[in-house]
Amino acid sequence: MSKYVYFFGGKSADGNGKMKELLGGKGANLAEMCLIGLPVPAGFTITTEVCNLYYANNKTFPKELKAEVDAAMRKTEEVMGAKFGDAKKPLLVSCRSGARVSMPGMMDTVLNIGLNEATLRGLIDSTGNERFAWDSYRRFVQMYGDVVLDLKPQSKEDHDPFEHILKDLKKERGVELDTQLNVKDLQELVKRFKAVVKAKKGKEFPEDPMEQMWGAVASVFGSWNNDRAIVYRRTYGYPHDWGTAANICSMVFGNMGDDSGTGVAFTRDPATGDKSFFGEYLINAQGEDVVAGIRTPKKMVEMQKEIPACYKQLDEIRGILEKHYRDVQDVEFTIQKGKLWMLQTRNGKRTGFAGVRFAVDMVEEGLITKEEALSAGRIPPDDLNQLLQPIFDPEAKRKAKVIARGINASPGAACGKIKFFADDAESFVFKNGKGVILVRQETSPEDLRGMQAADGILTASGGASSHAALVSRQMGKVCVVGCKELEIDYKARTMTVKGQVFKEEDYISVDGFTGEVMAGQVATKPSEVVEVLISKTLKPEQSRIYQQYAKLMQWADEIRGKFVIRTNADKPDQAAQAVAFGAQGIGLCRTEHMFFDHIKEMREMILAATPEDRKKALAKLLPFQRADFEGIFKAMNGYPVTIRTLDPPLHEFLPHDDKGQEEVAKDMKVDKKVIAERVKGLHEFNPMLGFRGCRLGIVYPEITEMQARAIIEAACNVAKAGIKVEPEIMIPLVGFPAELKAQAKIVRETADKVFAEKGMKVDYLVGTMIELPRACMAAGEIAKEAQFFSFGTNDLTQTGLGMSRDDYGTFIRTYIEGDLVPKDPFQVIDFDGIGSLMQTGVERGRKTRPDLKIGICGEHGGEPDSVKFCYKIGLNYVSCSPFRVPIARLAAAQAALGK
Amino acid sequence: MSKYVYFFGGKSADGNGKMKELLGGKGANLAEMCLIGLPVPAGFTITTEVCNLYYANNKTFPKELKAEVDAAMRKTEEVMGAKFGDAKKPLLVSCRSGARVSMPGMMDTVLNIGLNEATLRGLIDSTGNERFAWDSYRRFVQMYGDVVLDLKPQSKEDHDPFEHILKDLKKERGVELDTQLNVKDLQELVKRFKAVVKAKKGKEFPEDPMEQMWGAVASVFGSWNNDRAIVYRRTYGYPHDWGTAANICSMVFGNMGDDSGTGVAFTRDPATGDKSFFGEYLINAQGEDVVAGIRTPKKMVEMQKEIPACYKQLDEIRGILEKHYRDVQDVEFTIQKGKLWMLQTRNGKRTGFAGVRFAVDMVEEGLITKEEALSAGRIPPDDLNQLLQPIFDPEAKRKAKVIARGINASPGAACGKIKFFADDAESFVFKNGKGVILVRQETSPEDLRGMQAADGILTASGGASSHAALVSRQMGKVCVVGCKELEIDYKARTMTVKGQVFKEEDYISVDGFTGEVMAGQVATKPSEVVEVLISKTLKPEQSRIYQQYAKLMQWADEIRGKFVIRTNADKPDQAAQAVAFGAQGIGLCRTEHMFFDHIKEMREMILAATPEDRKKALAKLLPFQRADFEGIFKAMNGYPVTIRTLDPPLHEFLPHDDKGQEEVAKDMKVDKKVIAERVKGLHEFNPMLGFRGCRLGIVYPEITEMQARAIIEAACNVAKAGIKVEPEIMIPLVGFPAELKAQAKIVRETADKVFAEKGMKVDYLVGTMIELPRACMAAGEIAKEAQFFSFGTNDLTQTGLGMSRDDYGTFIRTYIEGDLVPKDPFQVIDFDGIGSLMQTGVERGRKTRPDLKIGICGEHGGEPDSVKFCYKIGLNYVSCSPFRVPIARLAAAQAALGK
Repeated sequence: MSKYVYFFGGKSADGNGKMKELLGGKGANLAEMCLIGLPVPAGFTITTEVCNLYYANNKTFPKELKAEVDAAMRKTEEVMGAKFGDAKKPLLVSCRSGARVSMPGMMDTVLNIGLNEATLRGLIDSTGNERFAWDSYRRFVQMYGDVVLDLKPQSKEDHDPFEHILKDLKKERGVELDTQLNVKDLQELVKRFKAVVKAKKGKEFPEDPMEQMWGAVASVFGSWNNDRAIVYRRTYGYPHDWGTAANICSMVFGNMGDDSGTGVAFTRDPATGDKSFFGEYLINAQGEDVVAGIRTPKKMVEMQKEIPACYKQLDEIRGILEKHYRDVQDVEFTIQKGKLWMLQTRNGKRTGFAGVRFAVDMVEEGLITKEEALSAGRIPPDDLNQLLQPIFDPEAKRKAKVIARGINASPGAACGKIKFFADDAESFVFKNGKGVILVRQETSPEDLRGMQAADGILTASGGASSHAALVSRQMGKVCVVGCKELEIDYKARTMTVKGQVFKEEDYISVDGFTGEVMAGQVATKPSEVVEVLISKTLKPEQSRIYQQYAKLMQWADEIRGKFVIRTNADKPDQAAQAVAFGAQGIGLCRTEHMFFDHIKEMREMILAATPEDRKKALAKLLPFQRADFEGIFKAMNGYPVTIRTLDPPLHEFLPHDDKGQEEVAKDMKVDKKVIAERVKGLHEFNPMLGFRGCRLGIVYPEITEMQARAIIEAACNVAKAGIKVEPEIMIPLVGFPAELKAQAKIVRETADKVFAEKGMKVDYLVGTMIELPRACMAAGEIAKEAQFFSFGTNDLTQTGLGMSRDDYGTFIRTYIEGDLVPKDPFQVIDFDGIGSLMQTGVERGRKTRPDLKIGICGEHGGEPDSVKFCYKIGLNYVSCSPFRVPIARLAAAQAALGK
Repeated sequence: MSKYVYFFGGKSADGNGKMKELLGGKGANLAEMCLIGLPVPAGFTITTEVCNLYYANNKTFPKELKAEVDAAMRKTEEVMGAKFGDAKKPLLVSCRSGARVSMPGMMDTVLNIGLNEATLRGLIDSTGNERFAWDSYRRFVQMYGDVVLDLKPQSKEDHDPFEHILKDLKKERGVELDTQLNVKDLQELVKRFKAVVKAKKGKEFPEDPMEQMWGAVASVFGSWNNDRAIVYRRTYGYPHDWGTAANICSMVFGNMGDDSGTGVAFTRDPATGDKSFFGEYLINAQGEDVVAGIRTPKKMVEMQKEIPACYKQLDEIRGILEKHYRDVQDVEFTIQKGKLWMLQTRNGKRTGFAGVRFAVDMVEEGLITKEEALSAGRIPPDDLNQLLQPIFDPEAKRKAKVIARGINASPGAACGKIKFFADDAESFVFKNGKGVILVRQETSPEDLRGMQAADGILTASGGASSHAALVSRQMGKVCVVGCKELEIDYKARTMTVKGQVFKEEDYISVDGFTGEVMAGQVATKPSEVVEVLISKTLKPEQSRIYQQYAKLMQWADEIRGKFVIRTNADKPDQAAQAVAFGAQGIGLCRTEHMFFDHIKEMREMILAATPEDRKKALAKLLPFQRADFEGIFKAMNGYPVTIRTLDPPLHEFLPHDDKGQEEVAKDMKVDKKVIAERVKGLHEFNPMLGFRGCRLGIVYPEITEMQARAIIEAACNVAKAGIKVEPEIMIPLVGFPAELKAQAKIVRETADKVFAEKGMKVDYLVGTMIELPRACMAAGEIAKEAQFFSFGTNDLTQTGLGMSRDDYGTFIRTYIEGDLVPKDPFQVIDFDGIGSLMQTGVERGRKTRPDLKIGICGEHGGEPDSVKFCYKIGLNYVSCSPFRVPIARLAAAQAALGK
């Protein structure tokens, strides 16, 4: 039989920090902190396994659980020197959720369990503080009523019945603050609270401490499947069957007077990465007060003066924790009458900036190895994005009107229209793609989706550890919190700052580096890192973040080894940029962009009635293509360049509206009817499955011939100038081996002609995109002709899933919300389906040609999980847009580390 | 080293009848006939291997060949008692092509090789017939000039220079027939022929017999890759790398006077299957004269009177051949001065009618086994089509105007517009799908494509063995030949019959059973077989063809065993018809057809703004669906019925034009804008990859619920009436296992509700279509939920190949003509690609659920090669349209026989 309950307390514990799957993060770390001798209030963890059994058995607990809980409670009482339910020296406990990963604010917590009319007496006697005891009791009844008895408001319109009673009583007493209520008032409150429970639930508020505790455990388990927890797991891709543990912890009180307090802190600054002790605390308060963002707490530096002894002890613990956990910790602590208790530790969430800095600093401090520094747990590759995102242009900012200043909770520059409600933010972004700043008094877990949609988040209250701050940092969103100058009127949908009224259609700009809020749209410029890499007005030695970035990237490249990162680039400047970002070649150079630049000649080609006319039009396009390729070959300076022959359906080059067709007709000196008929002739029911890709080159071989000539001539010209060239000519949309064979024949014959004309040769390859399911299945035959494969996962996803990227909007939200698809398959490779096709393609291709070079050039090539998948199935390279090259480099290193 | 040359002659031969791959069909059978003692003019076969070497080595012969040929020629001379190139008793030879399969008229033949000024003398001396010798010589020069020296006309506008000279000379001499030319005239012809060769080729006509022979061999090999041969192979799917053999045969002459002749014959009637000796001959003629259709030959019955001895010998040989080859033979023979020589034998091409009759008769005669009778070589399953095709309605025919009568060369009833040129026939059918009668003086291999496109073929000259007749029978086309009353004016594009002029837009009707040609469109009625099976006004014992068909089908079913044939049927009458054709269940019942019948309610459902409104509209549809299903269950009387839930995109149910939308708006009492907007909202860029299939049921679960209810209620009602029901509910377009799980849950929950309401249960299955590549790859997971799979190969082909059936017309012809695809993948399963996906699906599905029932319900399910593939990869059933059920039954039997 499994062990269901794990005790921790004193300097011993049944569990340890490695047991997160069973004990949850919180439980495992409480045990671990006990084992390394830190002061932790004793308690025990009911395992995640019990949670899953609870659900499996129709929400009942396993029958063996009770005895284990009772035994653990006895041990807890022993260590804490108090007794649960005792009328003299009562032990109070909290019940806290704790899943394998942190899900801040998503699940339930109940404090002060064990209080009733009898134990209340004991609490008064043992603390000598009657007001504190009654305040604890009224808080308990309220919290238990809200959470366990489910009286909390179910919608925005609902009122919390307890808050209502509290408000009324304060009105009756003529006071404003809770703290102004006296013992009698609190007693009255408890009475009224209990009455409302009786009225709403039809039975008395539970007095039995054990009944209270079991109710709380059930409630914590139940909260695993509340809506927001489900949405949260879906957002981050966590499985629904992990379950949560329930932690029963002895209560310690930060609200027992001015020698008590509570706080949350990071061992280093999670926004900037600075090595300073970063956090906030409140004197005479309970933990929820700090996180909830209602009272603005004090900074840790002030604690040093205010409670120096506790600060010193905490600072020592900071060092012990970092050394022990080898990472930055996010801790919760409570000081009860001068004694420090650690309530939680966990790896700190961090911004991309902080992530890079932590990693590099810790390696240099000798705390961790380079390999550890690069792990995905420390730096999710996407976080690098933050370092590469634009910042506000200092010049533009100088001219901008700063309307307010708040706490810089998550760095970056964001502009957008004001939205006050998460729903509105979400639907605006769903329609427009981006451009929202979510402005809230404070955020709550209900705002999660709106926060994810928004470009930036701005709150009026809360500190650097508030919900808004924590979540923004995790999401990599620009965030400014605690901006007290904002007066938000949700009803009027306005925000007033020093008399100036902003409405929902107004633009504001938010600087997450400085905490500044500006009116209007402020122009941006490249990030420091990008500036050093590309524009180079900033020198490397002038930018600390660049230096740290560069170091990390160097380590990543060392570990990545032979796995290559290429880029998708169509023009010389893009190509150059990508090289600056670390690209080692072009994996996809689309030639159609060049054609759009010379649309007139392209249209002549399309409208040509005979192969001869077509050849004439193509002859005009040749010099343009050749010049473009020369530019790219030069920019890539020896790196391989994969050029795809013409791919899109021809109708894309012709106007579809009357007016446009008229203009083209005039321009081309033909009858408008000719244009209209050609457009009609090219119309397709399913263009994605139509006349495109190599099908164009098969029907019009002269197009492929011209393109091959342009590529090979350019390669010869550039090689003659002493620059190494390595063109790889890629035939798109091949399904049948004979298609590639036919196109490759044209390419090779054309190349031979050019070589004869030029009296020289260059090496080149002919390969194909693998972007049709058939190509994956027939990869063995295709590899007989193909010198390389490149997976086109955009099209492979469309055809493999039978799902058009242009059309899947109708149903994909239902799918994602119903957990019918693991992730959006156009963002992350659908491993089980499309991935299985890819694996088949790799296996069959390499069976024919063991040294076959295989890459990916779909947009998945820059998505970290997809990069790791590509590494795992043995691809030689990934190719992605220039800005994603650093992300792919890091993801590849993590893949190489198996992390 | 390979042996390149195989001698045959006397009663011995180096090869035999089994060596068709190496010696070609003609060569192998010449050898075989020698071995069984039949009179064959001696000669030798140069192998197909030499042909392939010839192409591989830049059109040169292997150097070892000459010695082998010389040796074989010596043996030939010995057996024939004459010497090649000898001035006294010269041996003349023909050079004939002969591939592994017969390709009638596609490749070259050269006769009378070995004639020159010197051997001509010998021929005159040895035959004593100067005119015959000179006529042979002028024929030789003309044929050699045309074929080997390539002076034959290259296009329709060109003239054959030799024909031109012949015409001129006849004019000069004032005669009409070739036979009216005397020896001097023939000498003059030879002179002029040689002059034109000299003028056109710049050198003399070759005099050296060996040079002549090598030229002819090269020409035969070269003709393997002429355009028409390539088209022919593509049409029938024969590989291009088989190559042809070249047969050098001693010449025997049917044109040496009235005791000479030549003919072609079938051992039984290849059109009707009758046991009569069927064929034609001409006295004093060479072989080409019979086949070419220029002179109308006599029937075999007349030969019995005209040359009784030869007829008797031939009739004996007829028996020997059938016994030896165990099949109907198609022979060529020549009588030279009263001596019979066999020039060729091969299995006779036959109509579907004849095929069935041959097979059944021969089993009953004890000639062959049932298994042999069923082989694909004897009855290609598609040939059964002919037995099931309509015939002319006797009533309509009685009233129709018979304008002419010809020879009934290939049975059936065809109506269409007159087209005189193959190109026109082809392009008309490409546009309109069908409806052409190709009318020609005679057909030639150039007309092949036009014949394939046409519904029927009508020629003015030629007999039952003419090109038109042979090819039509092979293609299963209705054909009437030798209709002498037609006067065709190609230039005016008219056909005149007894003064009445028919133009290209006029309809005619052609009866291939009787040889009648009628003006206009004559109504048809079901074939005899279908009449017995379905309408049953004809009793089985009244129809001989039905009885033979039924016997064959019974044998096929015995051999097919457990492999099941189902049908695709949406309505009770269709279902009943399919059962009559032998269907053992419904593999695909589409429910959308039912919705089209109740389009108003369906539109209400689509336009519903809320799930509640949608449920209301669905409630109206429920009784219709239930009634439909009851009808189908009753018609299937215990056979399983697979019902697919709603599949097509919703926009298909709404009108897309202004007027239609206006009408619907009025009908539904809503603003036209509502309709227009919904249509716009449902518009998709790639509807094939859009909101359809199970995606509809996922987003609108109430649709699936209604359909499940209708099916289960109908099943209960029918079961209650004592009829066994076995509904199989099929969810379409599943890609992700979770989709099926979600839909299956709705079905099962609904079924449980219905069972509870009705107080009874019926067995049912829930399964899925496998029609997306992802489904094939994820088949293992999907099979956890699916109780059956049914391959939807239409969609699987579209997605797997990335090729839309609606759009592939733009390029597929280029693909087929360029041999880039083996066959049209929408007609025959693309075995290497889509087939590989299917195999993966079967393997993975059965790994999870070893007894998983798997079928196919795409249109490929009735295509013989695809049926065989399905059998091979272990499917349990195929499902096809009712009329293809017999074809699938036969194909399945052939699959079981491994043939």
